[in-house]
Amino acid sequence: MDIITEIPRMSETARTIRQDGRRIGLVPTMGYLHQGHLSLVRRARQLSQVTVVSLFVNPSQFGPREDYNAYPRDVHRDTRLLGEAGCDLLFMPAVERMYPPGHSTVVEVRGLTEVLCGASRPGHFRGVTTVVTMLFNIVRPHVAVFGQKDAQQAIVIRRMAADLHQDIDIVVAPTVREPDGLAMSSRNEYLTPRQRRQAPILHQALQWARSRIQAGERRAAVLIEGMRDLITTESSGQIDYVSLVDVDRLQPVEDVSDQVLIALAVKFGRARLIDNVIVRVGKRDEPADAESPGSEKWPSPSA
Amino acid sequence: MDIITEIPRMSETARTIRQDGRRIGLVPTMGYLHQGHLSLVRRARQLSQVTVVSLFVNPSQFGPREDYNAYPRDVHRDTRLLGEAGCDLLFMPAVERMYPPGHSTVVEVRGLTEVLCGASRPGHFRGVTTVVTMLFNIVRPHVAVFGQKDAQQAIVIRRMAADLHQDIDIVVAPTVREPDGLAMSSRNEYLTPRQRRQAPILHQALQWARSRIQAGERRAAVLIEGMRDLITTESSGQIDYVSLVDVDRLQPVEDVSDQVLIALAVKFGRARLIDNVIVRVGKRDEPADAESPGSEKWPSPSA
Repeated sequence: MDIITEIPRMSETARTIRQDGRRIGLVPTMGYLHQGHLSLVRRARQLSQVTVVSLFVNPSQFGPREDYNAYPRDVHRDTRLLGEAGCDLLFMPAVERMYPPGHSTVVEVRGLTEVLCGASRPGHFRGVTTVVTMLFNIVRPHVAVFGQKDAQQAIVIRRMAADLHQDIDIVVAPTVREPDGLAMSSRNEYLTPRQRRQAPILHQALQWARSRIQAGERRAAVLIEGMRDLITTESSGQIDYVSLVDVDRLQPVEDVSDQVLIALAVKFGRARLIDNVIVRVGKRDEPADAESPGSEKWPSPSA
Repeated sequence: MDIITEIPRMSETARTIRQDGRRIGLVPTMGYLHQGHLSLVRRARQLSQVTVVSLFVNPSQFGPREDYNAYPRDVHRDTRLLGEAGCDLLFMPAVERMYPPGHSTVVEVRGLTEVLCGASRPGHFRGVTTVVTMLFNIVRPHVAVFGQKDAQQAIVIRRMAADLHQDIDIVVAPTVREPDGLAMSSRNEYLTPRQRRQAPILHQALQWARSRIQAGERRAAVLIEGMRDLITTESSGQIDYVSLVDVDRLQPVEDVSDQVLIALAVKFGRARLIDNVIVRVGKRDEPADAESPGSEKWPSPSA
């Protein structure tokens, strides 16, 4: 596996790969990798000839009171894991090269970024879309792979790529979970043993809502109340939001129909954990399909 | 000259040109071409093997009370002029393809866009940087050529290209003028005969300021007052702004030193005209260089 730290060398390498007619797959990460990231790398390998993983803890997507400095880092372990996973190229730019003095350009997706995590993390998605555009411009991938755990991020980036005509396939790969159902996240690191034992309640609440929908429940308010009850009675987590939204515009739904994204964010101490599930409801005669979709079934942005 | 209207075909054509190792030069325009545009085309031809001109009247850079619908259009004449000027490819996308329903992504350069024209045209530069990023992504140029007449635009786009790592050379070509000094602009079309006779006062005011600086005047306030007096006594134009700013951050200067951008915007009826000049002041023993710079001498964005 090659490691590149200089932006011009990455650009030039990407140019050469493209001139050779080979497809580039990109997996943007902030490092401290887990099996979720590695599943994205495997997906990228299936879809490209040269798999690039970027490792960049992006300051502009952290709020002033968030965990930028504390964000866990372990480059040696990450490098080893990526080599084993078959990553071809690791791109690790320096912050001061990505954001040189005077940097003042942002990329922003409106509307989609003002709800769910965007409501409690103002500026977060602007930081994400800005850095992802920068990475897209430097690495010039044909395809980029994101995880469903960050569902809103994936939907925002799809919108951005389409709107800006970035000509990049945005693929969304399923959430990878611990055996007890907790979605893998670098921030799980922050959990105390007690919080770690409680955290699977997030997934359980989502599964409960899905089973209720399968049993015929359609009222969002009832489902939300049930999930909130479960989380607050079974854990010490502080709920940020529990929402049922449509997958195109991320607007709250009153009744479940077609496809609904059930998403939640809960704080356990300094760990803010998110999780989600997409549930499809069959129309009339169709059977309900309540499986969490893989990348192929992941909904496309609004028509 | 080839004409392409479909975005996917333009992307594919650009990909093929790049794979052949040929350099693409882009001149983004809103059409209704004049000699100023054609000088940009000639510059692009010197700097690339395939010269692409985009013709797109971009709705998002017009304010709600501005002249989007009235903006002059003459595609047949534009096509003929571009063919004669040696343009290789004319890209004319449809508005509804560039901005399909649900489009919600913007690219914004902060700070630089809040002054001068940005102060009286809120959102204008956001529209410009958004559409230029879209055009860059579709046409994938190695070099893009802009006119110095729109000096703030050129400085904003340089900043954007650097910040987003777009890997595109931004070249700025000198303003082309009518024999009486009026900067060429599609909006000169709006002038009544009387306004047209008065409009060269903009250039004359700038030349006056330059000559005063060459004669040793350094006080911005004195220069601004002199230019305002000239314009208001010699014409019916309504001044929007007359400013002396540094070329990096576009912030007002009190005293002229190093390089200064003297920029102005004046309304003649519904025609809002802009013009500018960059004046260099020699340090101590250096002779003052008061020539309007061509693209080579155009200042680079802040270090």
